[in-house]
Amino acid sequence: MTGPRHIPLGKGGEFDAISAALHRWGALAEGVGDDCAVLDVPAGRKMVLSVDNAVENVHFRRTWLSPEEIGYRSAIAAISDLAAMAAVPVGIAVSLTLPESWRGDFLRICDGIGEAARSTGTRIIGGDLTRGGELALAISAVGHVAEPLARRGARPGDALWVTGRLGGPLLAVRAWDRGTAPQGEVRARFARPTARVAEAQWLLAHGASAGMDVSDGVVSEAGHLAAAGGVHVIVNLDRLPLVAGATPEDAARSGEEYELLVTAPAALDAAAFEAEFGLPVTCIGAVAPPMPGEPAVEALRGGRRVELPRGHDHFPVM
Amino acid sequence: MTGPRHIPLGKGGEFDAISAALHRWGALAEGVGDDCAVLDVPAGRKMVLSVDNAVENVHFRRTWLSPEEIGYRSAIAAISDLAAMAAVPVGIAVSLTLPESWRGDFLRICDGIGEAARSTGTRIIGGDLTRGGELALAISAVGHVAEPLARRGARPGDALWVTGRLGGPLLAVRAWDRGTAPQGEVRARFARPTARVAEAQWLLAHGASAGMDVSDGVVSEAGHLAAAGGVHVIVNLDRLPLVAGATPEDAARSGEEYELLVTAPAALDAAAFEAEFGLPVTCIGAVAPPMPGEPAVEALRGGRRVELPRGHDHFPVM
Repeated sequence: MTGPRHIPLGKGGEFDAISAALHRWGALAEGVGDDCAVLDVPAGRKMVLSVDNAVENVHFRRTWLSPEEIGYRSAIAAISDLAAMAAVPVGIAVSLTLPESWRGDFLRICDGIGEAARSTGTRIIGGDLTRGGELALAISAVGHVAEPLARRGARPGDALWVTGRLGGPLLAVRAWDRGTAPQGEVRARFARPTARVAEAQWLLAHGASAGMDVSDGVVSEAGHLAAAGGVHVIVNLDRLPLVAGATPEDAARSGEEYELLVTAPAALDAAAFEAEFGLPVTCIGAVAPPMPGEPAVEALRGGRRVELPRGHDHFPVM
Repeated sequence: MTGPRHIPLGKGGEFDAISAALHRWGALAEGVGDDCAVLDVPAGRKMVLSVDNAVENVHFRRTWLSPEEIGYRSAIAAISDLAAMAAVPVGIAVSLTLPESWRGDFLRICDGIGEAARSTGTRIIGGDLTRGGELALAISAVGHVAEPLARRGARPGDALWVTGRLGGPLLAVRAWDRGTAPQGEVRARFARPTARVAEAQWLLAHGASAGMDVSDGVVSEAGHLAAAGGVHVIVNLDRLPLVAGATPEDAARSGEEYELLVTAPAALDAAAFEAEFGLPVTCIGAVAPPMPGEPAVEALRGGRRVELPRGHDHFPVM
């Protein structure tokens, strides 16, 4: 089943399934088959690596998404971590644990992974396939960058900016939990997120001092930027850009957005950004010097400080 | 709980558990906390990446191993893939899916991962922690190499060599399956394998033309070298180096050995290798031109061709 330019694999069920996936991916997965992927890193660039785990019934339910969407968003989640550092994605490796009940969907999951790779200019460079009791995709993404956009680096006087419109994933999960089906933008924001690869590079080139992607809710992530940078971050919930139907509190808590949260000059040219990407970038707060005895991040609503909505925590307190 | 040189993380159970692991790893995990790991690749070197998945009840059972051993051997399996290409390991990233029933063992698993990193000169550069229904460790290992030892490259006239002594993991699993406890070298070969990092670099420097590690049984792996190189490979089972108690058939089928299987000149100085590493390297076969209509690999026993013992296939035919 391997394409002519793939390194031939030997016999066995695991290898047959992998061969079928490689055939499906075609040129996207050219060269896969050795013990490791081998990649050139351009001179003067650093290598970046990110891993992201998507587990059935933790990150999604089977009834929510098509197999293609499960593969797609798992790969995008890992690629989004590269985007968060303004890196150029190069390749993803896929560790897939596949239960018996999912075998018939294997190639559809692979198709979604392929779509994520194709849409971000990324190749599939390796992986590992295991049977198991629950569907799990652990995706490793590698890329390169000259100087990464890191979490530390926020400076007092910067503004806090976020791309896109928030709240979609939270509203989608809420709808599914209620037994209804989310629609339109709300569903798409959960099922078909975008990794903001070019957007991050633009923001870095236009003065972003620190950044990350919104995996765990924008206020929670602002707390990470504050802690890493040793600064105080103020999030103005009234300014959060919202998908239709979301409240500011929804938007503040919604995770797995894969939008970018950056600290950058208040004079950032948001109109130029929107003209280039067809996507808003919105000033939602400010960076202040550290305030001893105060929490590192505070949320304002109607001009008053409010209790921070908790972020999205996949892993309850041990 | 984070050490002073770690990038501080925000609040939440996932972050607290990760902080505890980072604290335990200390300098081994220095700098972890951004969206991606950032690594320098020395000029003139290529980057290599490998991923390896270890799932409870597929790769091991809880009653067989200590939590430290589970962490250790999962990390070694990924690092061994780098060794197989004669690469220098630099870092590992750990995607861990942790069921409720394993939470009390979390830090002991981390200790084992740390031991594997320390013993191979590798750092822990990132990861992802998820709850889930079954324990799974997806480890990504990155390193660099000038010119990798690849699976393709075997030339007719080469000999086939293997490091170490084979059969231990198969005998260990057989003992556990019978309800007895494997002992000594047999248990150690399963529970405490070694990634042959320096050994692979020595073999490459001494003329190895192709190579891989023995994850799936030496005859099965020889088939991969034959297929990738477009050659015919002969494995002489009578020559397989055996752990005490193993038959040649056991040794031929035993997987997860993490020994190196290479094609190299027949004149390879095995005594010098053994003097350097305290480990045998044994000539177990030969590389011939491709034979149309014949299987790519054949096994000999007592001078006669025998049916190939099946390798270790984690994933039954779909």
